[in-house]
Amino acid sequence: MPASPKPQAVVVDTSKSPHAQLKPAPLGAVRFCDRFWEPRRKINREVTLPSQYRQCEETGRIDNFRRASGRKQCDFQGIFFNDSDVYKWLEAAAWTLAETPGGETARMADLVIDEIAAAQQPDGYINTYFMFERAAERWSNLKDKHELYLAGHLFQGAVAHYRATGETKLLDVARRFADCIGSVFGPKSEGKREQTDGHEEIEMALVELARATGAEKYLRLARFFVEVRGQGGAGGSPYHQDHTPLRRQDRVIGHAVRHLYFCCAGADLCAEDGDVELRGALDRLWSNFTSRQMYVTGGAGCRYEGEAFGKDYELPNERAYTETCAAIGSVMWNWRMLQLGGEARYADALELALYNGVLAGLSLDGQHYFYQNPLSDDGAHRRQKWFGCACCPPNVARLLAALPGYAYGVTKGGVWAHLYASSAADLQLPEGPRVSLRQRTDYPWDGAVEFEVRTAGEFALHLRVPEWCENGAAFEVNGKAQDVHAQPGAYVEIRRTWKPGDTVRLNLPMPPRRIESHPYALENAGRVALMRGPLVYCVEQADQPGLDPRALVLPASAEIRAEHREELLNGVSVLRFRGEAQPPDQAWSGKLYRSARAPTTSAGKNAEVTAIPYYAWANREPGRMQVWLKRDA
Amino acid sequence: MPASPKPQAVVVDTSKSPHAQLKPAPLGAVRFCDRFWEPRRKINREVTLPSQYRQCEETGRIDNFRRASGRKQCDFQGIFFNDSDVYKWLEAAAWTLAETPGGETARMADLVIDEIAAAQQPDGYINTYFMFERAAERWSNLKDKHELYLAGHLFQGAVAHYRATGETKLLDVARRFADCIGSVFGPKSEGKREQTDGHEEIEMALVELARATGAEKYLRLARFFVEVRGQGGAGGSPYHQDHTPLRRQDRVIGHAVRHLYFCCAGADLCAEDGDVELRGALDRLWSNFTSRQMYVTGGAGCRYEGEAFGKDYELPNERAYTETCAAIGSVMWNWRMLQLGGEARYADALELALYNGVLAGLSLDGQHYFYQNPLSDDGAHRRQKWFGCACCPPNVARLLAALPGYAYGVTKGGVWAHLYASSAADLQLPEGPRVSLRQRTDYPWDGAVEFEVRTAGEFALHLRVPEWCENGAAFEVNGKAQDVHAQPGAYVEIRRTWKPGDTVRLNLPMPPRRIESHPYALENAGRVALMRGPLVYCVEQADQPGLDPRALVLPASAEIRAEHREELLNGVSVLRFRGEAQPPDQAWSGKLYRSARAPTTSAGKNAEVTAIPYYAWANREPGRMQVWLKRDA
Repeated sequence: MPASPKPQAVVVDTSKSPHAQLKPAPLGAVRFCDRFWEPRRKINREVTLPSQYRQCEETGRIDNFRRASGRKQCDFQGIFFNDSDVYKWLEAAAWTLAETPGGETARMADLVIDEIAAAQQPDGYINTYFMFERAAERWSNLKDKHELYLAGHLFQGAVAHYRATGETKLLDVARRFADCIGSVFGPKSEGKREQTDGHEEIEMALVELARATGAEKYLRLARFFVEVRGQGGAGGSPYHQDHTPLRRQDRVIGHAVRHLYFCCAGADLCAEDGDVELRGALDRLWSNFTSRQMYVTGGAGCRYEGEAFGKDYELPNERAYTETCAAIGSVMWNWRMLQLGGEARYADALELALYNGVLAGLSLDGQHYFYQNPLSDDGAHRRQKWFGCACCPPNVARLLAALPGYAYGVTKGGVWAHLYASSAADLQLPEGPRVSLRQRTDYPWDGAVEFEVRTAGEFALHLRVPEWCENGAAFEVNGKAQDVHAQPGAYVEIRRTWKPGDTVRLNLPMPPRRIESHPYALENAGRVALMRGPLVYCVEQADQPGLDPRALVLPASAEIRAEHREELLNGVSVLRFRGEAQPPDQAWSGKLYRSARAPTTSAGKNAEVTAIPYYAWANREPGRMQVWLKRDA
Repeated sequence: MPASPKPQAVVVDTSKSPHAQLKPAPLGAVRFCDRFWEPRRKINREVTLPSQYRQCEETGRIDNFRRASGRKQCDFQGIFFNDSDVYKWLEAAAWTLAETPGGETARMADLVIDEIAAAQQPDGYINTYFMFERAAERWSNLKDKHELYLAGHLFQGAVAHYRATGETKLLDVARRFADCIGSVFGPKSEGKREQTDGHEEIEMALVELARATGAEKYLRLARFFVEVRGQGGAGGSPYHQDHTPLRRQDRVIGHAVRHLYFCCAGADLCAEDGDVELRGALDRLWSNFTSRQMYVTGGAGCRYEGEAFGKDYELPNERAYTETCAAIGSVMWNWRMLQLGGEARYADALELALYNGVLAGLSLDGQHYFYQNPLSDDGAHRRQKWFGCACCPPNVARLLAALPGYAYGVTKGGVWAHLYASSAADLQLPEGPRVSLRQRTDYPWDGAVEFEVRTAGEFALHLRVPEWCENGAAFEVNGKAQDVHAQPGAYVEIRRTWKPGDTVRLNLPMPPRRIESHPYALENAGRVALMRGPLVYCVEQADQPGLDPRALVLPASAEIRAEHREELLNGVSVLRFRGEAQPPDQAWSGKLYRSARAPTTSAGKNAEVTAIPYYAWANREPGRMQVWLKRDA
């Protein structure tokens, strides 16, 4: 093993970014020990990662590298962009190694890295599809063929592995490929091609590569790829966000994952450059996304055609596309926006997407995946073991593996708690004290969160009061209630000189909430969704035999009770209420339209209803599921 | 000109079909002189047909035939299925020639027929794409390449031209091609290929070819193509209706135009064979379509992806695909179902699709077309002059050209009035008298319809009381009110021995109607559509400056008044009412979701609202349009 430089940061390292106000917690500095995430992360390590590795082997994704290196004689297998699944899997493995070094994960990762490195061409290029008979087609169809997208995922996997292990083998591969790319693409004045990829990804990856290597040239190349889009070099269409430069855009449009990844890159550049104009564009895009195009689950991209964003308020439920990767893109973008100034609204959106839009993408057993995440279903939509286009599975895996890195941030003199989960954190504040913190909570099932400071020193603890915490939160320091103005959707700052053993208690009340949507979101008209804390709930057939969820009415008067059920779905708090079954009247039989009658106000039949967290649906027998429930007033 | 056999029938000739109970009126037997359809049909003859011919020339569609015949050296131009547009245009021209022989239409048609005939290969095959360098690929990709679909449109064009003119040049071309096809496809036991096309069309075309030529072999081949689908030979997927045989299907599924064309063929076979099992399947499919998957406009196929039917009650408005061709497919299918027994429900569905779903596809100037027909729009959706895939324009043209053929049917001893429009009809009843009829009405603007019998004889006049005529209809014979039980959605039979000059007056009251949709059609929840007679109305921005149609509420108490405006949109009856503007409250600003509040009952600002017929929207300046309007109770 070479002497390893100190690993620097998790997920996105903005620690040297001059304009990022928050810095992420150093890698390995936060360890989860909660009962919500940690059991899932254990499954991620022990079941998901090995099973995804096997899928990559069985589907020829790794053999494609062996073929490229000449180690194996075989045809190229699968889709031309399949290398990216291997890279994303590797990134997931790397973040896992940061916490749990060695073992089977290291063995698999080393094997994969070895195959990748062997497949690299003498000039640095790697792409197992554009080899041999297709070698001459290299860079010939940037719009469709994802070569730079794949390179980006390689770079992210390499940076993660380097940060987690200190090993440079894959990082060196990435640098050589990045240099190869930098020799081809760039300003015309330098004799290079002013074009970019149809699918964003390389932009944010190059920023990370610059941060990991300290090489400014990769940041320059990232900037080039961000700025060149919008001039027609990547197809010219909104599908590729190539219709107008990012800094002039004002609505999320086209392929959802692509636009969200592009926004990640934009935020990265803001962190690096403090580009006010670009920041303004990102604010406009974020506002359009969250106020017009985001599902209540935080999901993104309503359309099947083009896996795309739609028009404002176009939010079909059963036909929601809401790709798992797009929700992950939202988490990544919001994370980057959060670093720019500690605005809680970004953490709120991140949390919403994480607990709902992303988490639904993975089965409780850690081996089945949703690509699309509808908010209503007739029981036909089921998680699959794998996909021909398998972008989502390793994307979930890498996010779960990196998750503790999202929990905290630091500023000069401050610690920021973004996510609540029982954990231990050791944080070095810039130009300040080392802070050791314990967090104890049963979040998201309970809103009580206790922080124990284990070290002495003066610093501010910034605690997020989520936007959903509408009636504010209560704080205690060392058991004494604090008169804090705890506005929802903001961070509360508790600044003091701490002694070891000091505690802060935060109570975030979690009454079940009925949520309504904007009147122009037509599919939700006359309906409410149920939430509790950050979780969106749904009514699934399995919990109410004999009741068609479509006929269910939630009366305004119904009391909704939360109830923890440890035996259900690996332990969930359910919501229970007395609803009414109001099936369409008999006169509807055989009819789709009729002359309007006065709305009936018949009481319907009482029905005891149990709603479960949306993320947990489709883990039992197939049946109808609905997020939006009819209200009676 | 060769001596012409007497032209036989319009649109679909079931006159020789043993099991059809109704027969269409003979070709040329009905002439429209109304002020709704006839002005549009004049535009169709004088503007649409010549402009479509020019489009076919300018886009290389006719040159493709010249290339195939060797008359011109050029590359194939456009999409591989472009021949079909020429064939459909020719069918439109042919039906026009039946009423208005000679002139420019005949010149254009003769030229096109000559080019087609010259392009036919020695073995009878015609397809301008699979020539020369692609000749070896003939019949190699039935699933995708539309060769049999194109043949079907050729056959329909040829039958139409033969019926209209008595000329056999194109019919002979069609027979040779059909014989070529029959030598390749058929039962394995005959050493042939048991496969069919990915796109239905040839099936119903072959039935018509059999009727026009009297050749049973074409009917046999049609039967083969209908029965072979559902066994995987056309791709195996529901998209191609190849997942299960037609006689076992129970929901419309996959590509909408394809399934509707397939159902046409099924109905044709029922007419020929009296196949009870097949008829049962068609009834199930019709019931699924009309009670779960049909737009209030009669439009069909909600999904952009695959131009397809969706799930039950999946009826997005702004994102409705509802291809013009699919509405035409519904007209064609319902027409064929109607022949099987004179059930008015089929005529109702036909009329609904015709006046709304189809007619919206064509601009008032006859030169611009919708491919998709949304029921809500932000002003961006505009009719186009032409399309790369130009199936819809000539499809509308052939329907308008053939329209008088849809007005009447005959049975032994009976005349059936399906559509109401001022017209003159001369009908020979099977084994009965010749009947001369005049129809005078201002339908669809007014529900008064007068029939004048000009000939003597005993027969029954069957007059349709549309389903929308909910409170029944009034009848007079020679000025004397009749005590007739006029149930909506049925034909009233008036049987007597008629004298020349006898009149029947029918009054179909046309109050404006508020229509609600099934509670499971979520996009329409809490909304009503407006109808009057067979017409669906919409609110278009152009008529209410300053009012966002999305904010409009139609109070239950509002009186809706019909008002004829001769100067507007070539003359339409509008609906007027006092609505309320209730824009989303200020607290929604920047929000897409919030904790539910009690619904507001604020009155909103009064707004004088004018609704126009849906078919006429987007003929003025761009602006928002909505069919479904918010109701307040």
